[in-house]
Amino acid sequence: MKVACVLANGFEDSEFRQPYDALQDAGHDVTIVGLQAGQELKGDKGRETATVERSFADAQPNEFDALLIPGGFSPDRLRAHQQAVDFVKAFFAANKPIMAICHGPQIFIPAGTYGGHRMTAWKTIQSDLRLLGANVVDEEVVVDRNLVTSRQPQDIPAFIREGLKLLERTPAAAR
Amino acid sequence: MKVACVLANGFEDSEFRQPYDALQDAGHDVTIVGLQAGQELKGDKGRETATVERSFADAQPNEFDALLIPGGFSPDRLRAHQQAVDFVKAFFAANKPIMAICHGPQIFIPAGTYGGHRMTAWKTIQSDLRLLGANVVDEEVVVDRNLVTSRQPQDIPAFIREGLKLLERTPAAAR
Repeated sequence: MKVACVLANGFEDSEFRQPYDALQDAGHDVTIVGLQAGQELKGDKGRETATVERSFADAQPNEFDALLIPGGFSPDRLRAHQQAVDFVKAFFAANKPIMAICHGPQIFIPAGTYGGHRMTAWKTIQSDLRLLGANVVDEEVVVDRNLVTSRQPQDIPAFIREGLKLLERTPAAAR
Repeated sequence: MKVACVLANGFEDSEFRQPYDALQDAGHDVTIVGLQAGQELKGDKGRETATVERSFADAQPNEFDALLIPGGFSPDRLRAHQQAVDFVKAFFAANKPIMAICHGPQIFIPAGTYGGHRMTAWKTIQSDLRLLGANVVDEEVVVDRNLVTSRQPQDIPAFIREGLKLLERTPAAAR
């Protein structure tokens, strides 16, 4: 499947690297979509770098089958831009698989897509989402139909396991 | 006046340095309060460093006359800790002067102190606060009784100007 990974500076290093590698290793094609094509991004811990391959201005959600949203400060940087928010909204509207970890679900707030699924997130974002009336739980991984969410780096193995299962069971019709 | 500046890693460099220096230059005594005394903190842009002087575990809000909350990723790191959230709440409860810029008002969300004042914040936090029912406007500086808020580094001069005025007009009784 073609997976868009939305990323900006200050992403949580392992929350990008490990799911990215696991999806590629499983035969999926992951494209890094960001604010400016060619931009070099650094992880918050300085361990990982990544290059934006496509910008929101030229990447269309309908070119992709699934979405990956790593955490860190990246989701808050992305959600300052309406194009990034609209990009994420489109995957919800099309019921395409979405994997979001840690601060990832922060983008769901301006997108208005936090109300339809049971989910988890980083503890501070859990608190924001709960106050907004979302159905939030504190578990290492939550799967609700097309959405897989996790809380933090320690949850990455469960996040990858459930994410890969979700991509496998997504009907070919949606691809 | 004795001012507590609450700070964690990833603070926005100028939003810490410039108000901190301006308050000290005006004769106020600013103490950096954080998660662990002695911890060396780095700004998000790598331009500024700061050392935590007191931890939330041993600093009491009643030792301070006012509060400064710089932005960046620092406020989200702080609000993951209940002691930091309670520290901020205490300044609201005592009607002490509070200066918060950019992501600073993010701490008001878990503190439940976003409903009582007109305020501004970084654009993504404006959006969170608005969805939560707060009285939020998009202006370079907003003064409402004991609270001064601003949006971003460009607003720092207005933020400092109104913050200093607030400290000057705070009655001696509150000191």
